[in-house]
Amino acid sequence: MSFELVSNNYGKSAVRLLRVTRDGQQHDVKDISVDIQFEGDFEAVHTVGDNSRVLPTDTMKNTVYALAARQPVGEIEEFAQRLVEHFLDHNRQVSQVKLGISERLWSRIPVDKKLHPTAFVSGGDERRTACVTGTRAGIAISAGIDDLLVLRTAGSAFDGYTKDSYTTLSETRDRIFATIVKADWLYETRETNFGSCWRTIRGALLESFAAHPSESVQHTLYAMAKSAIERCKEIREIWLSMPNKHHLPFDLSRFGMENRNEVFVPTDEPYGLISATVRRA
Amino acid sequence: MSFELVSNNYGKSAVRLLRVTRDGQQHDVKDISVDIQFEGDFEAVHTVGDNSRVLPTDTMKNTVYALAARQPVGEIEEFAQRLVEHFLDHNRQVSQVKLGISERLWSRIPVDKKLHPTAFVSGGDERRTACVTGTRAGIAISAGIDDLLVLRTAGSAFDGYTKDSYTTLSETRDRIFATIVKADWLYETRETNFGSCWRTIRGALLESFAAHPSESVQHTLYAMAKSAIERCKEIREIWLSMPNKHHLPFDLSRFGMENRNEVFVPTDEPYGLISATVRRA
Amino acid sequence: MSFELVSNNYGKSAVRLLRVTRDGQQHDVKDISVDIQFEGDFEAVHTVGDNSRVLPTDTMKNTVYALAARQPVGEIEEFAQRLVEHFLDHNRQVSQVKLGISERLWSRIPVDKKLHPTAFVSGGDERRTACVTGTRAGIAISAGIDDLLVLRTAGSAFDGYTKDSYTTLSETRDRIFATIVKADWLYETRETNFGSCWRTIRGALLESFAAHPSESVQHTLYAMAKSAIERCKEIREIWLSMPNKHHLPFDLSRFGMENRNEVFVPTDEPYGLISATVRRA
Amino acid sequence: MSFELVSNNYGKSAVRLLRVTRDGQQHDVKDISVDIQFEGDFEAVHTVGDNSRVLPTDTMKNTVYALAARQPVGEIEEFAQRLVEHFLDHNRQVSQVKLGISERLWSRIPVDKKLHPTAFVSGGDERRTACVTGTRAGIAISAGIDDLLVLRTAGSAFDGYTKDSYTTLSETRDRIFATIVKADWLYETRETNFGSCWRTIRGALLESFAAHPSESVQHTLYAMAKSAIERCKEIREIWLSMPNKHHLPFDLSRFGMENRNEVFVPTDEPYGLISATVRRA
Repeated sequence: MSFELVSNNYGKSAVRLLRVTRDGQQHDVKDISVDIQFEGDFEAVHTVGDNSRVLPTDTMKNTVYALAARQPVGEIEEFAQRLVEHFLDHNRQVSQVKLGISERLWSRIPVDKKLHPTAFVSGGDERRTACVTGTRAGIAISAGIDDLLVLRTAGSAFDGYTKDSYTTLSETRDRIFATIVKADWLYETRETNFGSCWRTIRGALLESFAAHPSESVQHTLYAMAKSAIERCKEIREIWLSMPNKHHLPFDLSRFGMENRNEVFVPTDEPYGLISATVRRA
Repeated sequence: MSFELVSNNYGKSAVRLLRVTRDGQQHDVKDISVDIQFEGDFEAVHTVGDNSRVLPTDTMKNTVYALAARQPVGEIEEFAQRLVEHFLDHNRQVSQVKLGISERLWSRIPVDKKLHPTAFVSGGDERRTACVTGTRAGIAISAGIDDLLVLRTAGSAFDGYTKDSYTTLSETRDRIFATIVKADWLYETRETNFGSCWRTIRGALLESFAAHPSESVQHTLYAMAKSAIERCKEIREIWLSMPNKHHLPFDLSRFGMENRNEVFVPTDEPYGLISATVRRA
Repeated sequence: MSFELVSNNYGKSAVRLLRVTRDGQQHDVKDISVDIQFEGDFEAVHTVGDNSRVLPTDTMKNTVYALAARQPVGEIEEFAQRLVEHFLDHNRQVSQVKLGISERLWSRIPVDKKLHPTAFVSGGDERRTACVTGTRAGIAISAGIDDLLVLRTAGSAFDGYTKDSYTTLSETRDRIFATIVKADWLYETRETNFGSCWRTIRGALLESFAAHPSESVQHTLYAMAKSAIERCKEIREIWLSMPNKHHLPFDLSRFGMENRNEVFVPTDEPYGLISATVRRA
Repeated sequence: MSFELVSNNYGKSAVRLLRVTRDGQQHDVKDISVDIQFEGDFEAVHTVGDNSRVLPTDTMKNTVYALAARQPVGEIEEFAQRLVEHFLDHNRQVSQVKLGISERLWSRIPVDKKLHPTAFVSGGDERRTACVTGTRAGIAISAGIDDLLVLRTAGSAFDGYTKDSYTTLSETRDRIFATIVKADWLYETRETNFGSCWRTIRGALLESFAAHPSESVQHTLYAMAKSAIERCKEIREIWLSMPNKHHLPFDLSRFGMENRNEVFVPTDEPYGLISATVRRA
């Protein structure tokens, strides 16, 4: 029996870095986790245990810290590009480098109504993300948002749907709509103000989530995607994934009471999961 | 061989509730998780399987939703009191009810520079907590904060400590100080503006964390505790727990480079863990 | 500006089910979590909020329980097929149904050296998985293993690799090799004894992990993949993902002591991540 | 305003260690996580930032590895004792050392029906635990089990309980009983075969969980506690905590079907939580 190595990847994941930049009394922090994946000519490492072309994942990790020391990280899309270029330049056997970065967000602590120059409080679970994929032919830059938890209490309906013999859900014109937005978009060009774009798209997603007259998660997801593309000309396409974090009205009728759409049970499981990709036509 | 039931507890944990309150176009949400524990005369349920005095934990759960429907939750310390009183009043066999509440925090989404009346974004991992313990003799009300993640990049030292043959840590006058504050305090009286106290204490903890010239985690923890007690006269005692979320300077010297206190490896394990209780004398 | 819905998916995730089957005094349990995803003609739900073709995800959930009631679950690949066929048969607007199942494993508790007929202890984090994708043209059946944590203390080397200016890793002929195996394979035919195949492949993976003279994670991963394909003729292709759960030798030389390859620090972050697909040629 | 330091603790948590012991071709592994907490004369570190009496938590961590290098870990209760004694001997300012250890369990991988001498598969989430508390007056040794997940499908009832206006639970003589056992017991003497005791108590807990005719979680918890004390004479007292991992019968009547106690929804939240301490009288 003979075998074929169809595809292979290797790299280092969860390389965590805090980079401090000092501008006089004012400090900035960049708090990131980096994932690196190589593809390339690694047949022999698998088939005969020949490591001569393998750059150790430990060296990949060291490289992250070394490049972070040479200059401030800057926007994560830029740091990812520098890492991709370094790895491609120094490793002829590598055909593709994929560099993912997830950034934890920090806010300055207010002290006496002024933002403190060197003390920070966590921005929560939300992450800013970027992914740069580089080959000998060129690079692709995408960015996104992870774990942006939002909830609205008005203007969300779900009715008029297909019923079959197993359908028991009640139709409603007024439900809780809660989701954890995950977004990924592709930049059209490397000459982009990545930070500004990210904030614009985040704002567009939040505002349209809040204000859209919602007939379903799909309906609002599509409106959010359109809004992001409309406001940020540097992107043409966005993917959104939005789990439906169900909040079930608690049945008070068993106690002779009425639930005036006020008392809900938040649930984690099971959950609806809706995703789509929308593109400027 | 004979046996003694030394102590026993039972109850329902993780009863999750979202309570919506509507004031015209403006909605408010209270998003809580409730833990209930009973102590009392439950010997027979253990020893002979006699359930006649057992209020099912399912009923405890239902009671949370029923009382949340009767009136808005209000401050979590108040809702916990109403639940404790209900359970003590209706269950003669119960000697103690312990009612813990953990509140997830939400902020309004800004749309066109105004806060949206019915749409919210998560306040992150941080939780506001309360614990009310009621017996036939009276009640005790404590409150706190969970998972308040903070970090500072200046004014934090650790030196002058004991060395022994296994000590390898370098002394420093300038290190990263990051921690996840957990706080619990006891109220002196039931007649308290609990929401206002909570915000005052949170502000005191954040500000003293940011500004204190720190010789150690213990040193700053003590300053934070003092600041909380000074600013909120309704409390006499506070317990703080502060893990040291170590950020290790990355050793760049192996590459012939210097780490100008700029490049750090955030680590989760192992971690220092410091806690103390401070009281107004 | 006009927009295009490039792709879309929706469904219910984490539908948890425990199905008990009784054969006289002997009970069996099947403990699964089901993920369902539909693709199809759902343009209007996104663009104009028309839900008329949407089968609610709540109905998908109900269907899982209804079909589990009609007959025992059996092998998860078979239950997934029944669900896929049901959804395709009853929903003309759907072009593809993807049905993932993750099975938690239970062992019987031994009592007086016999396996108890109705009491079980958890098999740990490991999961048996299956994924059936059905379209109007046919179905594809894959299966796998998740979270199979293994460790070996001998016969694992890593040396002879590429060095650059950031390489500091020491070469070794004797290291700890620990990983969490994730596997997915595609069945060639629907006429398969899925349970028997799964156990055969699991055994092949474990045995070759244990016994392979390892020059790298890649080297052993390839040997494991070959062994699985060799032993199970019903599969032609397998994908393996194996994070390198690094165990770092602790540096005792600072205390004037020697580490005789006995004292290690297990770490979760960062971790190497190696994956590949191998196919019978 | 003056302040009092009521109590204080500090130490290192989550010190992870893999210790390999080699006996010819046969290797053994001990995989533990260590938590250390000191109490003592640390007033000045808090009040004036005087670190002169502080042994760094980093040194505590190093000590774990150093002592693990001097001799094999052995039973975790013994390793904890050695660490406690070391810390008390070398730190006059310390009044109490609390040393907790949590052990991950590994089984040998079977290869050709024989257990492999150097390859292991995870024993799952279950942990063996120990806690040794030492003061100038003496030491106390406790041990336990964490995260032992079990389930039974027969012989478990819950009826005859108190009903009030919020009670909706149906009485049953046949329900699923699933729990995650957490146990802690105190040893009467230091001269104990800790490994043998642990296995005896674990067996007693599992067997009585499986076989006890259960009227409630409390009822079975008590039977399990009695069984442990009966079988292991070295302990006098045991604490058990058993969350009720509810499995709700799915309501099939809405589809005109009957649930013959076969189809259940496993739930994580909310959960009952039952704990008690039982002592030999």
